[in-house]
Amino acid sequence: MATGTFDLLHMGHIYYLKEAKKLGDTLVVVVATDATVRRLKHNPITPEDIRLNLIKELKVVDEAYLGHEKDMYSIVEEIKPDIIALGFDQVHDETTIKNELKKRKLNAKVIRLSKYQGESDLEGTRRIIQKVIAAHEFQKKMQRIEGEP
Amino acid sequence: MATGTFDLLHMGHIYYLKEAKKLGDTLVVVVATDATVRRLKHNPITPEDIRLNLIKELKVVDEAYLGHEKDMYSIVEEIKPDIIALGFDQVHDETTIKNELKKRKLNAKVIRLSKYQGESDLEGTRRIIQKVIAAHEFQKKMQRIEGEP
Repeated sequence: MATGTFDLLHMGHIYYLKEAKKLGDTLVVVVATDATVRRLKHNPITPEDIRLNLIKELKVVDEAYLGHEKDMYSIVEEIKPDIIALGFDQVHDETTIKNELKKRKLNAKVIRLSKYQGESDLEGTRRIIQKVIAAHEFQKKMQRIEGEP
Repeated sequence: MATGTFDLLHMGHIYYLKEAKKLGDTLVVVVATDATVRRLKHNPITPEDIRLNLIKELKVVDEAYLGHEKDMYSIVEEIKPDIIALGFDQVHDETTIKNELKKRKLNAKVIRLSKYQGESDLEGTRRIIQKVIAAHEFQKKMQRIEGEP
């Protein structure tokens, strides 16, 4: 099982999912709902149903579901994964997760994956957003210099 | 064969590729190079190698290659597709393409696909970009009103 927001897909996401897939036979992905993303990070650019549908289109993904908002462990109880794969930069604390799983009698292993060593600097959603904004601000600056087209 | 830029993947891209796939057995996708995108549209947000690699990760895609810059038909000569599937909004003129294919003795059918009837307004790359920019400008406006965080 892998989890995430997966807003504006990039090669860092693909790397994480492929590494997770290597740990088992079937990769089930839990996509965070818009409400969860807003609580933990920021407003998502892409709505949850589209983020889920795009994830389902990836070769590496066998199944994908939206998470639950109130209790992040209830989806784990439903999926009953053998392994929960954490991305290298996911904030979840492994010990907290392990204790909570134990409490609920869930036998999933928790494995922290390695960092993506991409050649491009376009790894993260934030960097994509920054690039979009930089292109937009450059265009506005050029319009101030050159006049409207 | 399907072609495109595929910058910031969205469900309109998926729809186009799935419709193209329905026309045959193997879907080969030609991804436009950065130079071609700059010539025809705008600076791409995502570099060509990443756009290509992401397309290769989609279930619907069997093979994918970068296009050639000088002669857009040379990749058609290499791939020798049975069918070239055009997206509903792709600017290519069907008659021009058909004549050029004839001249080169290529027997590909050219089929124009239907429009994507998505429920979301987040269909296009431009709309994603606008959404990123709107979110950024709202944030800047709030900072002017509320002060820096």
